[in-house]
Amino acid sequence: MSTIGIIGAGSWGTALATVLAGKGNKVRIWDIDEKHLKSMEDNRENVDYLPGVALNDNIGISYTVEEALIGADTVLFSAPAQHFRSALQSAAEYIDDKSVVINVAKGIEQKSLARMSEIASEVLDMDRYVVLSGPSHAEEVGRRLPTTVAAASYNLQAAEKIQDLFMTDRFRVYTTEDVVGVELGGALKNIIALGAGISDGMGFGDNAKAALMTRGLAEITRLGLKLGARPETFAGLTGTGDLIVTCTSMHSRNRRCGIMIGEGMSPDEATEKVGMVVEGMFTTEAAYELAKREGVEMPITEAIYRAVKGEVTAAEAVEILMGRNKKHEQG
Amino acid sequence: MSTIGIIGAGSWGTALATVLAGKGNKVRIWDIDEKHLKSMEDNRENVDYLPGVALNDNIGISYTVEEALIGADTVLFSAPAQHFRSALQSAAEYIDDKSVVINVAKGIEQKSLARMSEIASEVLDMDRYVVLSGPSHAEEVGRRLPTTVAAASYNLQAAEKIQDLFMTDRFRVYTTEDVVGVELGGALKNIIALGAGISDGMGFGDNAKAALMTRGLAEITRLGLKLGARPETFAGLTGTGDLIVTCTSMHSRNRRCGIMIGEGMSPDEATEKVGMVVEGMFTTEAAYELAKREGVEMPITEAIYRAVKGEVTAAEAVEILMGRNKKHEQG
Repeated sequence: MSTIGIIGAGSWGTALATVLAGKGNKVRIWDIDEKHLKSMEDNRENVDYLPGVALNDNIGISYTVEEALIGADTVLFSAPAQHFRSALQSAAEYIDDKSVVINVAKGIEQKSLARMSEIASEVLDMDRYVVLSGPSHAEEVGRRLPTTVAAASYNLQAAEKIQDLFMTDRFRVYTTEDVVGVELGGALKNIIALGAGISDGMGFGDNAKAALMTRGLAEITRLGLKLGARPETFAGLTGTGDLIVTCTSMHSRNRRCGIMIGEGMSPDEATEKVGMVVEGMFTTEAAYELAKREGVEMPITEAIYRAVKGEVTAAEAVEILMGRNKKHEQG
Repeated sequence: MSTIGIIGAGSWGTALATVLAGKGNKVRIWDIDEKHLKSMEDNRENVDYLPGVALNDNIGISYTVEEALIGADTVLFSAPAQHFRSALQSAAEYIDDKSVVINVAKGIEQKSLARMSEIASEVLDMDRYVVLSGPSHAEEVGRRLPTTVAAASYNLQAAEKIQDLFMTDRFRVYTTEDVVGVELGGALKNIIALGAGISDGMGFGDNAKAALMTRGLAEITRLGLKLGARPETFAGLTGTGDLIVTCTSMHSRNRRCGIMIGEGMSPDEATEKVGMVVEGMFTTEAAYELAKREGVEMPITEAIYRAVKGEVTAAEAVEILMGRNKKHEQG
């Protein structure tokens, strides 16, 4: 059995805690929001972000990072991507040298354009760093519905360790060494989810959304390949799979935010109304900058960027999203 | 302006007739079901299969194949895949040597394992043969919601002719020369849609379905490559795009049939209850045979085949669909 310290008690951190605790592991979970921790302790449930899922006795609530991480052989970061750097900084001194570190944040740091593993590599040994990603709404994992994800590490043995740690009949884990591809798939798909939401919010149908998702996947794959990812990763669970689940489900905050923008709400209002972090808003800006830096054509990302910045209306953005010039499909 | 004869007045044939007629073309539509034609003539609407969409004055109802095709510079077949051969046989003598022939049937002929273009090539000049396919529910095209499809022909000029014929602001057409890839994407995705429906019918969620769709796409791509298709076609509109729209929408008969099977209904009952052709039932058998013949591993297709044949229950099939052995993702 393992002892796992979790940094961040949002819906996903909590859902993963229930998977690990359900297998008999000892889990301690910490969050920056003390009131939230108190509520979890009092209710033995994450009422705010994962209601309806009881916390198993193996899950302890920690009020300090130190308490959560001391003696942990595995550390799991589930902070929002834009807060990963500061979460890691405040936790680093308590992470044991032999611990495996898992990160489930999906995003690109806006100010540095760094992927999460690039931030981590400044202080952690990449041989013990694993990215967990895939089509996995926390709400469904909490309800024990079948879910499949990938564990990615430059060190396949570390990925396999995490695979064994999580694997159940209902939570299946594959391994891969393509850290860059897994990170980019998970981050960039949120841009397309915003666009899919805008299309839905404008009253368009499944045909339009499927076309947008297909062109969007091609576009984020293009950027990924330029940054060293493998093409098959974008065709896999953490690319195509995560894109599908995010763009078609009401569980997705990014899609819900897009829907409100499509219905005419301002991007700021829509973000506020979602109430939780809308990672796609940050990722869109970061990807727009990355695409410029790398010289990769990303018309959908650019259209969403302009909509989010208020430079074009949702209606104008959708015109661009739909692809205006007739052409050869592979042209 | 063109004169187009349409063979088959189902939902898709009718929706395409409205697109063409809306651009000022003359359309004549025929169907094997005379009562259905009478209803369309009386109501100026396809009440049975595309309710709520008025038939433009440019659409004429023809009670004989000859009347529908005489003087037509373009012939469009929208018969179910298993009936394409007989439809073509009864129409061939009325098709002008210079006409472009479009086929929108998605499927594989069960008894011969032939693709639609292989059947067509026995009597038609492939230089004037175009496949039209993509993520395109007829109900949405009838309501003028934005839709994007591909026109595929070995002769790119023929594809471009059809692109120009159909193209509107709301109905965008790309061209490609990968006839095999377009045909296989459109046909084989119905197998995965059946599986997605079974998963939904069993009460599983978006995570499970996204994983299944991702693995399913990989599997049909594998068979496609073996049969000479291009990989990028499966990543495009007629592969990924059509798969997404079919697996996530209630418009899909294949998915609806799968849902009922997942809920415990027998495959025969489910097919009957859908009331229209469930092409995926035939395609599953054909693909199962093709995979055996070509030596391609298709575990999802095989599981659905066994469920459809009554050899395993839906619950047993889903166990296989979820992928039982832990492994490397690209393994």
